[in-house]
Amino acid sequence: MPDTFYRERQRNLVQQVRKEGCDAVLVCSRGTLRWLCGFSGSNGALLLTESGSWFFTDGRYGGEAQGLVSSGAASAVGIVSSALPAAVFGLPDFSGAIRDITEAAGHSARIAVEADHVTVASHEAMLAAVSEHACACRLCPLSGLAEALRAIKGVAERDAMTRALRLTESVFLDVLTLVQEGVSENDLAAEIDFRQKRAGASRSSFEPIVAFGRNSARPHARPGPDRLAPATPILFDFGCELDGYCSDMTRMACLGRPPPEFMRIWSVVNAAREAAVEAAVAGMSTLVLDQTARRVIEEEGHGEHFVHSLGHGLGIDVHEWPSVSHRAAHILQEHMVVTIEPGIYLEGRFGIRLEDTIVITGAHCERLNRLSTETVIL
Amino acid sequence: MPDTFYRERQRNLVQQVRKEGCDAVLVCSRGTLRWLCGFSGSNGALLLTESGSWFFTDGRYGGEAQGLVSSGAASAVGIVSSALPAAVFGLPDFSGAIRDITEAAGHSARIAVEADHVTVASHEAMLAAVSEHACACRLCPLSGLAEALRAIKGVAERDAMTRALRLTESVFLDVLTLVQEGVSENDLAAEIDFRQKRAGASRSSFEPIVAFGRNSARPHARPGPDRLAPATPILFDFGCELDGYCSDMTRMACLGRPPPEFMRIWSVVNAAREAAVEAAVAGMSTLVLDQTARRVIEEEGHGEHFVHSLGHGLGIDVHEWPSVSHRAAHILQEHMVVTIEPGIYLEGRFGIRLEDTIVITGAHCERLNRLSTETVIL
Repeated sequence: MPDTFYRERQRNLVQQVRKEGCDAVLVCSRGTLRWLCGFSGSNGALLLTESGSWFFTDGRYGGEAQGLVSSGAASAVGIVSSALPAAVFGLPDFSGAIRDITEAAGHSARIAVEADHVTVASHEAMLAAVSEHACACRLCPLSGLAEALRAIKGVAERDAMTRALRLTESVFLDVLTLVQEGVSENDLAAEIDFRQKRAGASRSSFEPIVAFGRNSARPHARPGPDRLAPATPILFDFGCELDGYCSDMTRMACLGRPPPEFMRIWSVVNAAREAAVEAAVAGMSTLVLDQTARRVIEEEGHGEHFVHSLGHGLGIDVHEWPSVSHRAAHILQEHMVVTIEPGIYLEGRFGIRLEDTIVITGAHCERLNRLSTETVIL
Repeated sequence: MPDTFYRERQRNLVQQVRKEGCDAVLVCSRGTLRWLCGFSGSNGALLLTESGSWFFTDGRYGGEAQGLVSSGAASAVGIVSSALPAAVFGLPDFSGAIRDITEAAGHSARIAVEADHVTVASHEAMLAAVSEHACACRLCPLSGLAEALRAIKGVAERDAMTRALRLTESVFLDVLTLVQEGVSENDLAAEIDFRQKRAGASRSSFEPIVAFGRNSARPHARPGPDRLAPATPILFDFGCELDGYCSDMTRMACLGRPPPEFMRIWSVVNAAREAAVEAAVAGMSTLVLDQTARRVIEEEGHGEHFVHSLGHGLGIDVHEWPSVSHRAAHILQEHMVVTIEPGIYLEGRFGIRLEDTIVITGAHCERLNRLSTETVIL
């Protein structure tokens, strides 16, 4: 991403926390750090105020941290030798920034922290550090600040996600040539991961799911040593990370002709998927979208077999805002990217899930997938 | 693991929380759930009391949850339709268990929760649920309870980790045959991951690190498109998960003869590693062990280039207790399994890290690695 993107995102997040009555925000979660400054390591913290940004990490990432300053993604860096984020409260740079805020605001600085990512122990360590270093600040745990901003994807982000999906689709077609009697779930899953990386992905979005026959009745089956027998349905669910953004796709195949019952259930799941893709539009509640697909499945008597949410936001993280579920309401907005993945799971027999990715537009939505959702008969 | 192991671990954890004045413990972290009952999914909660164990998850894992009851790893299960763990406070099973505790104890139940894993938002949601459902209980966030127990490995666990390391060592030797001019870091990393899985691993412990030349000066380099030139040092750091347990190993290789400066630095790192392996013994503080290796490096004038901890505990998670670091003191105990991985990083030139895995015994320690730490010249 060009560095102007990072600076704009940082400004937007500071504006957002100011609306909540805070003067600064301390970000530690991995996905949001990547979105705000491009840092992709496992341990960092970014303090954002109206006047600047301070990045903190440990010695392992000293080189990366210096790179953030050279590129303009951070205005200063600090290397800490003990556990982040509490350790930053003792650093001169950090307390200097807090002092500046306090003087400008005329009251002790209110620092937003990520309530959905900071643990209870880490929060207590931060409070202890505030008191130990007599930092004139107050911590305000808040939920979903950056998540709401991250949910709206820019052109470059949508482009990266489209390219990640193209790569995943092409690897799917490629791996279908390996499907034959006797191949194992483990074999196919390893091939998928390998081929995605060889085609340029930095990693799989998650460990690929390949599930044969009744294993597919478990929505989050892990691949195992089972070997493929004729007339067995196969569920593939995988994706990759390309230029920092994820793809996620689920398709069904069958070695030989699947039983008629399978095809009947497939039509129900596919109709549910289609109904949701048709209905999705900016301004709609995600509860309503979930309900749109769920009703199709319920009307066919399989409501109790659709045991998960309809979908989820997709981006730097494979699961991010908005939630597309019967549990939490978000409002769909233009340029949100979400998955639509209804499923029906018949314990002891088989499961069917079909997953597309859509971008919300003003007039309905754009489906990013090129591949159809037909069951591939091999 | 045999199910008697799970029941014993559950009993030990309940005893541990009782020492802290609690009547029950609610576990949600992934590694500890796996250790306590074998569940390997992404969303679960286990309530342990002296009289039983209740496992809670969402609809996606209904099949797995039933399996826990059949095998005796849990005495009952509940499926929740909203966000764990707060949702469990409204379930009849859960409140029944709390009522039993309260009646037996004659005071409101004190439930330990994992301070290092529960987020501030989740903790607040649990407190709200306690009040909404008028649950007669108090939450007690505590650190490191299960982590301290998990750090002491049983025979079957040490055996799984030894087998995981053998697999990793064999893949390392195998992948060395692919090292040639023009191969990329990405290619080699993808091959490592693929070959570990093909050899029976369920996954890599972490995305394999392959770093050429000056890239190796970044301790947590991510593989990239760089292609190998002659006389370039290569750092390999990878491991796999086998039967639920991790391996983790770092070795150096070089295409052609490395420069004399490289060999000199290698001897320093290797001497530091050897000093730590020689010194490690039950009863020793991990601060002292870290210092033993760090002093060797400092005496050669490279203290500032050893920018991370000496090592970490290894098990179900690739980083677990004990910490082996200059920051936090743990006491080494018999049957702890830790990595020893000193490194020297020369920005812009190269980095050298050598990583072994040891089991602490009464008399010193047992080194699990079979492969030497010599630089492999190719």
